[in-house]
Amino acid sequence: MDNTGRSESSRVEAFSDGIFAIATTLLVLQVAVKDPASVKNGADAWSQLGGIWASYDAYVVSFLVIGIMWLNHHTVFGYVARVDRGLLVLNLLLLLVVAALPFPTGLVSDWLRIPGAGKVAVAVFSGFMVAHAFTFQSLWWWLTRTGHLFDSRVDVAAARALRVRFAVGTVVYPLLFGLSFVSPVATLGLHGAMALYYAFNQLPIPLNPGAEADDEAVVSA
Amino acid sequence: MDNTGRSESSRVEAFSDGIFAIATTLLVLQVAVKDPASVKNGADAWSQLGGIWASYDAYVVSFLVIGIMWLNHHTVFGYVARVDRGLLVLNLLLLLVVAALPFPTGLVSDWLRIPGAGKVAVAVFSGFMVAHAFTFQSLWWWLTRTGHLFDSRVDVAAARALRVRFAVGTVVYPLLFGLSFVSPVATLGLHGAMALYYAFNQLPIPLNPGAEADDEAVVSA
Amino acid sequence: MDNTGRSESSRVEAFSDGIFAIATTLLVLQVAVKDPASVKNGADAWSQLGGIWASYDAYVVSFLVIGIMWLNHHTVFGYVARVDRGLLVLNLLLLLVVAALPFPTGLVSDWLRIPGAGKVAVAVFSGFMVAHAFTFQSLWWWLTRTGHLFDSRVDVAAARALRVRFAVGTVVYPLLFGLSFVSPVATLGLHGAMALYYAFNQLPIPLNPGAEADDEAVVSA
Amino acid sequence: MDNTGRSESSRVEAFSDGIFAIATTLLVLQVAVKDPASVKNGADAWSQLGGIWASYDAYVVSFLVIGIMWLNHHTVFGYVARVDRGLLVLNLLLLLVVAALPFPTGLVSDWLRIPGAGKVAVAVFSGFMVAHAFTFQSLWWWLTRTGHLFDSRVDVAAARALRVRFAVGTVVYPLLFGLSFVSPVATLGLHGAMALYYAFNQLPIPLNPGAEADDEAVVSA
Repeated sequence: MDNTGRSESSRVEAFSDGIFAIATTLLVLQVAVKDPASVKNGADAWSQLGGIWASYDAYVVSFLVIGIMWLNHHTVFGYVARVDRGLLVLNLLLLLVVAALPFPTGLVSDWLRIPGAGKVAVAVFSGFMVAHAFTFQSLWWWLTRTGHLFDSRVDVAAARALRVRFAVGTVVYPLLFGLSFVSPVATLGLHGAMALYYAFNQLPIPLNPGAEADDEAVVSA
Repeated sequence: MDNTGRSESSRVEAFSDGIFAIATTLLVLQVAVKDPASVKNGADAWSQLGGIWASYDAYVVSFLVIGIMWLNHHTVFGYVARVDRGLLVLNLLLLLVVAALPFPTGLVSDWLRIPGAGKVAVAVFSGFMVAHAFTFQSLWWWLTRTGHLFDSRVDVAAARALRVRFAVGTVVYPLLFGLSFVSPVATLGLHGAMALYYAFNQLPIPLNPGAEADDEAVVSA
Repeated sequence: MDNTGRSESSRVEAFSDGIFAIATTLLVLQVAVKDPASVKNGADAWSQLGGIWASYDAYVVSFLVIGIMWLNHHTVFGYVARVDRGLLVLNLLLLLVVAALPFPTGLVSDWLRIPGAGKVAVAVFSGFMVAHAFTFQSLWWWLTRTGHLFDSRVDVAAARALRVRFAVGTVVYPLLFGLSFVSPVATLGLHGAMALYYAFNQLPIPLNPGAEADDEAVVSA
Repeated sequence: MDNTGRSESSRVEAFSDGIFAIATTLLVLQVAVKDPASVKNGADAWSQLGGIWASYDAYVVSFLVIGIMWLNHHTVFGYVARVDRGLLVLNLLLLLVVAALPFPTGLVSDWLRIPGAGKVAVAVFSGFMVAHAFTFQSLWWWLTRTGHLFDSRVDVAAARALRVRFAVGTVVYPLLFGLSFVSPVATLGLHGAMALYYAFNQLPIPLNPGAEADDEAVVSA
């Protein structure tokens, strides 16, 4: 049937992927030279392009951050076989934060070079990361509390024990929020570095010993 | 075959999901500080961020509203096995309203704080909710009238009897339209509250007693 | 296998659906009041909302037009089992026109009320419809010429005979292009009317007598 | 199971398709007349439309370029059965470049007609093509180095031998970068010509002699 739990989960994944993909792509709308019509020659052009380096930083860091959020979301949902209303609502809150990310990215683009305002912009950006960490953590909490939403390969007890390690983001991102007021440029760099770190060191989902052989493709990822 | 009714329904769902996801994500383009270039320091930045609280309200309420619209659309289409031209056209009208929602959301962002204009903005927003309620109601009417578009699990007679309960939105939203002219901020809050209410109290689709066991994953949602 | 012709066709459909859905949703960005910051009270708000009726017309007509283009594209691809490079390139040209539609829609929004400029705007809009009709016609020509790209249910000889009826758009839209210079508002209305006509009177894809029973869901559409 | 390597690969494809489709569709936002409100009659309208021919060029060339990038990405992923973390990260870098393409497209729209600035704009555009060629090349390098990510039809040794031909773009695009400073209009035309060339002359993925018959649909493409 089209309406089994697995299909439910697929459609939630597809909708979530849509939001992730669009939010990611809208980031580029924040990258624009300030006054294209005033450009009269090549020197003006280079000058305008050089003047918006903060936009490039903001784009690259935000792209990596959303990309890694998507990878993690995608890994977790790869083990979800059923959805309930609680999961749908928590996922919706998570997407509410993800879809809003072009806003703080734009603030960083506009204000990173302005002394006090740069701190505010990166603090707001970090605040969104805190919110994302908390919604993602809630989603994991819900999945490990209910248990039956996972597919049969997942070792639910071990997954529950991973809550502490999943909570790392909820500790680190508030620290980065504080650091924004010290050095916004360094803080932005740390956000990019954390994204890259997570890209290569993802938390493994614990599986049952008897999980079927076909799954190794995922485990090797 | 790829072209059975079920596949038809899947593709309509995918297209609809795309519209929902994009309309949701475009909402954030309405959230922007008014004059980023004028900011000289941190105090200016906080001031500009504080000055657009109406944008945050509008974003959160609209996000929840579209999110819940999507959940409901998704639940109903989870029981649709076949599509006909009437369903496609009604669904297209529904999407016409959904895709337009960034427009009233922008009006609320811009005008909520301005005494008379705030009433107009929230009234227009409420008007779109009325239009959505009527198109969704028409879609349900069509599905229960034709009957054969549902898959075999659905108790069509009971589904038809649910028309009255499905019509609640077509009564409540016109009331909120009227209330917009009394208190726009309270009305906006009620829109958000109704979205949250629907998130946790969805109308169940009535199923036949003999519906197959595999479906319980959906029913439990 | 994942890489059979059918899967190819599915992925082309999915990519095309994405373009259709996004182009449709971007239309709403053209709907915006001209000077939101100048509004001081409710009367100003109504006045600004009333002043952009051309935007509403342009949005509704363009939405219906793209919606019906999608329905037709979707019906045709529902019978495509294999794709070749020629089909991919023709489909890409068709999508090039579809994705550009927010541009003429914006022109109509901005200029419909200005005497001479309204004619130009609707003529450009009609020009895009001509281009769409020709690319769609080319795609149908290619499918009926190659024949083996259809799935086995399609009566290829009869499909080839339908070329003349499929070519109607390539005659009607140039007429509407000419009519744009006489009455742009009436021409825009005719575009909307044609979209609605096609919504209810789609050309049927001719099937072989021995097509399998499972397909009736599609035929009934 | 939903979580085999093939399904992984499908979801990465779907996310990538989303990014490609959205980036493609956002290109049209760069096509806009400079001062729509100043238009008083038909002559003004034609004049404004004529004044932005660079936007049309930029739109068409960029659309074709992203379209062909998508076709190539799609062909390669059609033979990928499993994904690992390295492939995901390389794919994310590729998408980072693809999603940014509306930015250089906008520069070309704005500056192509301005002597010195046009060279800068096309050089930046060419720079993005260089970056894309290198990320795509890295992705192919990774696939042929790991080998086991391909599905069983692919002749991995022959695929590895194709690295040199896949590297053509990494040589040609730097040349176009240099040519941008000589003639930006001709360089833009060459980008379009290369996209069309690749549309009709794609590198074939080498298959094992014993690949199953069902695959011929893809090979014929």
